Amino acid sequence: MKMVKSIAKQQQIYRACKRVVGKHVYGNLYGVDKRILTSMQIVESAVVTSAMLGNMHILEIMKRKFDFENSPDNGGVSVIALIEESHIAVHTWPESSYATVDIYSCGVHSDPKKAFAYIIDRFKPKSYKQYFADRSS
Amino acid sequence: MKMVKSIAKQQQIYRACKRVVGKHVYGNLYGVDKRILTSMQIVESAVVTSAMLGNMHILEIMKRKFDFENSPDNGGVSVIALIEESHIAVHTWPESSYATVDIYSCGVHSDPKKAFAYIIDRFKPKSYKQYFADRSS
Repeated sequence: MKMVKSIAKQQQIYRACKRVVGKHVYGNLYGVDKRILTSMQIVESAVVTSAMLGNMHILEIMKRKFDFENSPDNGGVSVIALIEESHIAVHTWPESSYATVDIYSCGVHSDPKKAFAYIIDRFKPKSYKQYFADRSS
Repeated sequence: MKMVKSIAKQQQIYRACKRVVGKHVYGNLYGVDKRILTSMQIVESAVVTSAMLGNMHILEIMKRKFDFENSPDNGGVSVIALIEESHIAVHTWPESSYATVDIYSCGVHSDPKKAFAYIIDRFKPKSYKQYFADRSS
C-alpha cells in the first residue's frame, strides 16, 4: 500500500514537471565556519531540511567525506540528493572556508529559493553570490 | 594496497582543488530522440564516458527511472554521479524531447567542456543552450 501511494505521488509530481518548469538556484558561499564545512551531519541535515522547506522530495542521497592532508577531520564533504524534482548538491572546502550550493527543481510547486535561503541561514557565510538559471524546456 | 592507492589518489586530486578552481558547464538540450531520453543504459553510459573524457573520477552513481502516464517505457530518467571533483547530473523529459546536463568539476586538470561536448554528440539535440558558471572560491 505504501508502495502504491509512493508511485502515485511520484507520478503526480512527474506530471507537474511535464511542462518542464526548471528552476536552478545556485551559489558560492565564502567565509563559512570550518566546523560546519567539515561536518557531514550538519551538511546532510541542511540538505534534507532545505528540500522539505522547498517542497522537494528526496529519493536518495549520496555523500562523501574527503581527507585533507591525511586528516579526515579537516576534510570537506559532498552531499548530493536525487530528488523527484531534479537534484540538490552541496560541496565544501574547509581549507578555503568555502562551499557551493546547487538547488535545481522542476515543477511549479517547489521553491528552490526558499531552500537556498535556508542553507545560507544555516551556514552563515560572511558573503555569498546567488544565481538563477532557467532550466525550462 | 588498493585502498592506500585509492586514498593517495583522492588526496592528490583533493589537493588540486585546494585553490578551488570550480568550473560548472551546464545546458538545456531540445529536440532529443525519445529513444535516448527513455534509456537508462544510454544516459548512464553517456555520464560515465563523459566523466572519463573530462578526466573526472566517479565515486558513486544514483539513478532513477520515472513513470509517465503509467508507462515506465515512456518515462524519463535521472542519473547523477558524485565525482571526486564535484558532480555530473543528467535529467530527461521524453514527453518534451528535453534534457538538462550539469557538469561541475573542481581542479585544473578536469575538462567539463569536453565532457559536455561528448554528451551533445551522443544525444544529438536539434538545438541546445550551453552556459558556464565560475564556482571558484
